[in-house]
Amino acid sequence: MRFKLTLEYDGGPFVGWQRQTNGLGVQQVVEQALAAFCGEAVTVHAAGRTDAGVHALGQVIHFDLAGDREAERVMGALNFHLKPHPVAVIAADAVHEDFHARFDATARHYRYRIINRRPPLVLERGRAWWVPMPLDHQAMAEAARHLVGRHDFTTFRAAQCQARSPLKTLDRLDVMRHGDEVVVIAQARSFLHHQVRSMVGTLVLVGKGQWRAGDVARALRARDRAALGLNAPPQGLYLERVLYDSRA
Amino acid sequence: MRFKLTLEYDGGPFVGWQRQTNGLGVQQVVEQALAAFCGEAVTVHAAGRTDAGVHALGQVIHFDLAGDREAERVMGALNFHLKPHPVAVIAADAVHEDFHARFDATARHYRYRIINRRPPLVLERGRAWWVPMPLDHQAMAEAARHLVGRHDFTTFRAAQCQARSPLKTLDRLDVMRHGDEVVVIAQARSFLHHQVRSMVGTLVLVGKGQWRAGDVARALRARDRAALGLNAPPQGLYLERVLYDSRA
Repeated sequence: MRFKLTLEYDGGPFVGWQRQTNGLGVQQVVEQALAAFCGEAVTVHAAGRTDAGVHALGQVIHFDLAGDREAERVMGALNFHLKPHPVAVIAADAVHEDFHARFDATARHYRYRIINRRPPLVLERGRAWWVPMPLDHQAMAEAARHLVGRHDFTTFRAAQCQARSPLKTLDRLDVMRHGDEVVVIAQARSFLHHQVRSMVGTLVLVGKGQWRAGDVARALRARDRAALGLNAPPQGLYLERVLYDSRA
Repeated sequence: MRFKLTLEYDGGPFVGWQRQTNGLGVQQVVEQALAAFCGEAVTVHAAGRTDAGVHALGQVIHFDLAGDREAERVMGALNFHLKPHPVAVIAADAVHEDFHARFDATARHYRYRIINRRPPLVLERGRAWWVPMPLDHQAMAEAARHLVGRHDFTTFRAAQCQARSPLKTLDRLDVMRHGDEVVVIAQARSFLHHQVRSMVGTLVLVGKGQWRAGDVARALRARDRAALGLNAPPQGLYLERVLYDSRA
């Protein structure tokens, strides 16, 4: 039986989604919890590989279990065995045996949270990027429009990115302010490694007045990582939602 | 010169606002930061003494400093010396020498956050009360109306409460739901010790269907701590705002 699970996690204590030798990956914690309750070694597949420190509000995974189990019980048992790690299953469904969390995803939706105030962060520490200099969110929103659409995003791509092509279609890049908080929403079928953080870092340069919207367009056209403004830190980034066709 | 400061803090690592012998109080951390930057032993006075684990979004304090200093600089220096404690000054003003953070307050405004979902908390751990059983927030809102107004709140008062009278006027006790989050807003000129948490705990019994609105009215009339339903845990409580007459 194949299961589709939605996970929430605090990326802070992890080296990222993937199993690594230099620390604990979220994947490892989930696989250990699965092994603890079903006695099987199970491999889980995620919609997206979040980096060290990046959070998830709605990471999607799939895996197979032998025998007949109710999704609700899988969720409860997994949440029990995930303690005390800051990872929780927030939804679970039994799905068709050819469902794939990564390949069937039609869109990934990320949220990037910036707290724009002079005092340092307290309750939001590790949950947002602290930017003490005033940000012009309207200038950021205008610059963001240059990035929406189908482009070669080489400038906004990590050196270690494994995607076959740097061509991606960015469906949405919105910048909003609610009081002290500036939020960037990014949505695409898929992203390059570090693409969201690279775009947000560059928009923050615009927000500070160090770059203009035209500089962002020029950096994109340069198709050169060296043209990148700034990479935003991981703690502000949340994988918020992964979308699938209705059949999934 | 007298200064009025607004503080944000994460109550988690502290034994509460007040200096204590069994651990670190927020007051001690603030007084140490003040001593570090001005070289004086300064006593600070707070609008409200929050309990261990209770957070503040807008605690107000006052203190006196010798010499002539700008409020902006006091804020910056204090934030520098408060590191790495999760305490920040978010506003600072020079005030009249007879301003008193506690005695001049005309209202205290608290927020209590409940996350009402089956999966355990991850990103909100330590920031809200996790209640996995479904809560009927409308029944809670109806029951809350029985507590608004001037009453003897002995039932909702901690044994160690030092207030001279159990008579208090509760101006506002609202219950709202935003998705998984149930928020209780309480406002009064002043509260008894544990009053907000005692009221919230009792409202949660109503939300679970274990109590009815009439039981809350009866518990209030009993004027007896033994009639209390349940004390809500500290990590959901935030001192959000303290109000003063415009002259302050």
